[in-house]
Amino acid sequence: MTRCVNINGNSYQWPKRPVVVVCIDGGDPEYLSQFLAEGLLPNIQRFICEGFSTLAMGSMPSFTCPNNMSIITGTPSAQHGISGNFYLDTKTWEPVVMTGPELLRGETLLAGFAAAGAKVVSITAKDKLRKQLGKGLDVSQGHVSFSSEYADRCTVQENGIEAVLEFVGMAQPSMYSMELSLFVLEAGIKLLRERRPELMYLSLTDFVQHKWKPQDAEARYFYQQLDEAFGRLAQEDIVLGLTADHGMSDKSDAAGEPNVIWLQDILDAEFGVGETTVICPITDAFVAHHGALGSFVRVWKKEQVSVSALIERIAALEGVDLALTKAAACRLFELPEDREADVVVVAQKNVVIGGSVQRHDLSGLKGHRLRSHGGLSEAKVPFILNRPLNPEYKQQLAHREIKSYHLFEFALNGVV
Amino acid sequence: MTRCVNINGNSYQWPKRPVVVVCIDGGDPEYLSQFLAEGLLPNIQRFICEGFSTLAMGSMPSFTCPNNMSIITGTPSAQHGISGNFYLDTKTWEPVVMTGPELLRGETLLAGFAAAGAKVVSITAKDKLRKQLGKGLDVSQGHVSFSSEYADRCTVQENGIEAVLEFVGMAQPSMYSMELSLFVLEAGIKLLRERRPELMYLSLTDFVQHKWKPQDAEARYFYQQLDEAFGRLAQEDIVLGLTADHGMSDKSDAAGEPNVIWLQDILDAEFGVGETTVICPITDAFVAHHGALGSFVRVWKKEQVSVSALIERIAALEGVDLALTKAAACRLFELPEDREADVVVVAQKNVVIGGSVQRHDLSGLKGHRLRSHGGLSEAKVPFILNRPLNPEYKQQLAHREIKSYHLFEFALNGVV
Repeated sequence: MTRCVNINGNSYQWPKRPVVVVCIDGGDPEYLSQFLAEGLLPNIQRFICEGFSTLAMGSMPSFTCPNNMSIITGTPSAQHGISGNFYLDTKTWEPVVMTGPELLRGETLLAGFAAAGAKVVSITAKDKLRKQLGKGLDVSQGHVSFSSEYADRCTVQENGIEAVLEFVGMAQPSMYSMELSLFVLEAGIKLLRERRPELMYLSLTDFVQHKWKPQDAEARYFYQQLDEAFGRLAQEDIVLGLTADHGMSDKSDAAGEPNVIWLQDILDAEFGVGETTVICPITDAFVAHHGALGSFVRVWKKEQVSVSALIERIAALEGVDLALTKAAACRLFELPEDREADVVVVAQKNVVIGGSVQRHDLSGLKGHRLRSHGGLSEAKVPFILNRPLNPEYKQQLAHREIKSYHLFEFALNGVV
Repeated sequence: MTRCVNINGNSYQWPKRPVVVVCIDGGDPEYLSQFLAEGLLPNIQRFICEGFSTLAMGSMPSFTCPNNMSIITGTPSAQHGISGNFYLDTKTWEPVVMTGPELLRGETLLAGFAAAGAKVVSITAKDKLRKQLGKGLDVSQGHVSFSSEYADRCTVQENGIEAVLEFVGMAQPSMYSMELSLFVLEAGIKLLRERRPELMYLSLTDFVQHKWKPQDAEARYFYQQLDEAFGRLAQEDIVLGLTADHGMSDKSDAAGEPNVIWLQDILDAEFGVGETTVICPITDAFVAHHGALGSFVRVWKKEQVSVSALIERIAALEGVDLALTKAAACRLFELPEDREADVVVVAQKNVVIGGSVQRHDLSGLKGHRLRSHGGLSEAKVPFILNRPLNPEYKQQLAHREIKSYHLFEFALNGVV
């Protein structure tokens, strides 16, 4: 008899060997395309050849938080409730941060398996994700949950582990470095060898992808490091799943200037200051990555402004891909209605949407071209398993749409 | 050295063994899901297990003509120009039929390979498709192109074959029968055995899928017949590719009445008679299938009506999925701009859009629930090959989006 764990309405089989899922933040399919063609990723190439791979649809907006929550809960945003870093509370007209565990609906797979008796590990690059991923996880029960950002201040009480730098044998990585991601993988490999948890989630950062395109040497070096680490992970007799939270596209013009629609300024001029509020749900504390500019924004309106007037104005802007009512956006993108705006705006592949030009600090780009995400053009992500599908799952391929949030399901229920 | 043929900008390798592509008209993934689970499709199951399969995006609108043209040219509608059965000529304000070969841009794979010296065969269920598929094909050179609808009137001059009923050993099938599709397959098997053409395209009809849902005995029987024929095809040492032009969804309410938005009547009431024209591009001579009701329509407007007013009115209608400007629709769905309407309307999964209630004849449904297509909900289709991918194509899986119009490319360039 197969032992199963039920989490958020989905049934998962008890792992026969450790299941490790890696979320390559900003892991656009283009990087794989480039470096696989160059023959530089022998381990990923072997997984693709011997295991299973496809391009899967991620959650919209193609941002970090919604997608990490989708992957770790096995559900769409409509169910888990996290649809970006911010939404607007229309009672107070104040932005509400969605990156904490309190707004996450349902249970993570980590917490669910932990409650069923499994040992689980969650390691993230940025600490902002750590708390949400650690929801409901009692680290006093042998589980581990920490970020490489705060690796040097881990405590047994808070993280289930201490002296992490010594344990991993790496120096504390800088916030803006590829080592912040590589540290996550090294820590994962070490914990896998020493504690052999049943379930492990490793979530990287997109510092490299925001800065370097697939043709750049830095990106190439980073992916070679990733591939080498994936190879060592896979040697530990595990099921390894690789995906990304979102892709990454160039958002600058020929002169190297960002293609920005300053939507709040446009709407203020059209409808009056204070009548509409543009929320950029990519906004976080780390603006050097992207200047808080992504390809998906939310627009709330006061009573005087009509949704159709808003949509008419926005849809006419060059560079806009879609301007949708709340209902249409929620239906198309599986978003939670109670946190959605009156109008949802998606930009075209090479365009980002900002609020007011004064509110965005682009100094962090320092001469780099803007690379960012959030739109449909960054919503398709790699979905790779190091082991082949079992007959039951193989049979589903011709008729089932695979989303990135199915990765744990495939890793637990779908491979031989 | 590999011999290649260049068609519409794509390069195809000369087939090492015959390549046969079957388009299962209305072959919704749900049918495969149901009958594979019941274990009734041993041949398709073997292809999925030993070959390659995925769910692929078809062309929008999810209608027969655009998708057959996409598959047979290897290009999106924006390139081949066929985006439905009708568009409106804004000079004359008259609908223009798009099902003829004269509006098809570029070359079919059949004509391209024939010109390069291959023997090719095209067999369709309905004759309306035959001429478009036969564009540029000189049947006096040993090629075959006919429809089972007119099997009994084939001539060597027109079709490259005669006495087809005797050749196949079946009676002339009725227009509204599953035999119309099965005849196509039997003729294909016979021609494959006797003439062994390099390239063969077999396009069925969706009579069964319009009428019966995946739980119905008639659909089950039909799919068992298909599977059995696919098995005999595959025995001929060929590359066999299976896909569909579109899916099929139930479009009726709990009482069995069709969920119809009578859009022309609504727009006439709002903007005045004659100010807008709704074109239902599913419309053809065979209305018993669907009463000319699909989930995608085009709306053209006279000068007095604004696009935004149109979109506002239409987007507010219950059951509408998307109301898009021409530019947005063309970008999202790869449609040809010069044949697109001012506003493109897509219905939700269980809804169809009609013109004026007086213009649609639903008598053909005869108590059956309406099943139809045209929307995004019917745009994902099976994509199955009986042989495994070669390493080059396998490597693309993690980063390439597969469209149904890539099937010939995969069959010619991508399998072992």
